[in-house]
Amino acid sequence: MALTLFSFWAATAPYRVRIGLALKGLDFDTVPVDLRAGDQHGAAYRARNPQGLAPALDTGDGDLLTQSLAILEWLEETHPAPPLLPPDALGRARVRAMAGIVACDIHPLNNLRVHQALQGQGVGREAITAWSARWVSDGFDALEALVERHGRGFAYGETPTLADCLLIPQVYAAGRYDLDMSRWPALKAVADRAAGHPAFEAAHPLNQPGAPRP
Amino acid sequence: MALTLFSFWAATAPYRVRIGLALKGLDFDTVPVDLRAGDQHGAAYRARNPQGLAPALDTGDGDLLTQSLAILEWLEETHPAPPLLPPDALGRARVRAMAGIVACDIHPLNNLRVHQALQGQGVGREAITAWSARWVSDGFDALEALVERHGRGFAYGETPTLADCLLIPQVYAAGRYDLDMSRWPALKAVADRAAGHPAFEAAHPLNQPGAPRP
Repeated sequence: MALTLFSFWAATAPYRVRIGLALKGLDFDTVPVDLRAGDQHGAAYRARNPQGLAPALDTGDGDLLTQSLAILEWLEETHPAPPLLPPDALGRARVRAMAGIVACDIHPLNNLRVHQALQGQGVGREAITAWSARWVSDGFDALEALVERHGRGFAYGETPTLADCLLIPQVYAAGRYDLDMSRWPALKAVADRAAGHPAFEAAHPLNQPGAPRP
Repeated sequence: MALTLFSFWAATAPYRVRIGLALKGLDFDTVPVDLRAGDQHGAAYRARNPQGLAPALDTGDGDLLTQSLAILEWLEETHPAPPLLPPDALGRARVRAMAGIVACDIHPLNNLRVHQALQGQGVGREAITAWSARWVSDGFDALEALVERHGRGFAYGETPTLADCLLIPQVYAAGRYDLDMSRWPALKAVADRAAGHPAFEAAHPLNQPGAPRP
């Protein structure tokens, strides 16, 4: 069955799923959904995905999966090798907690629709950048302590997990807010390590359809 | 081993975990963390949970679990009966997507720390209520379509799942924003059904330590 990912090169949630797909060694087609141009609100996309968010994954069997964490867990269950979760329940809880910090405490406060809503409340551009930097910093502080304790090259242990699928796109996005990653040396070490890994390279925004060419 | 939940009666994220614990029939101790009074920022709590958020679950083995979704998945793996996820990967992805809509697209934009940050940006009380109502409405619209399709008494199928653990607290919180649940009849039907279920009743905010007495 052919997998098709509805993706936008610059958005962090589809980037998470691209990393997962690449780590599993799965081929997939990409359908670009230009979130900045509003493609996600168009009738064609809404008919496929009523929530109008990306990513969505067409399984090739007529089923469309939504929500990046749910898609990654589905990938793990349907394509168990290589594993993206540790074998023990406690380790899995630790990895999912790291993923949750990004998915629930950082990213939802900093995406495009929230920035647009803040503008609508009269919040200026600099204040919006400071708003975003605050949530990223709070979340990275929490992640730094966890990665310092559990990381061995990647965020949890020696091989990539769901935690890295979430962390690396958020580090990429942090660049927009002028955050200096040297404040979080454990996270920076993981990001540097991932930069040289072929799956993370294949999933990188600048290697996607629709991305600006140098 | 004795489970201990760090919980606040009025907050929705600990409420999710209380429902999961009750559905699994697990006894646990509660340590109240008064988020409105700022207990989560105190040195005693930060020493246990550096991120300073609730819930956190002490497993009784010296391990503290954080992030409500990660805790619920841990409960499912360590106490499989009764199951809170369907047996098939597609069904599990559907349930996790519903949970993700609440955990990632609704709740993070409406909690106490975000309301305080919006106040700090000069956003007034009415505008904050409208802000919250917007994100709840958008997310409930998406959930309504999914529950209409997959629900059979509960959000997915005939028995409670992780989706209900997330949905019911969010319906409770929606009352704060004067949202009329009759706009989402499928969600309202699930909430009415859950109101008569002993596990959901045991987990209800007004039945917790620290809640106001009538």
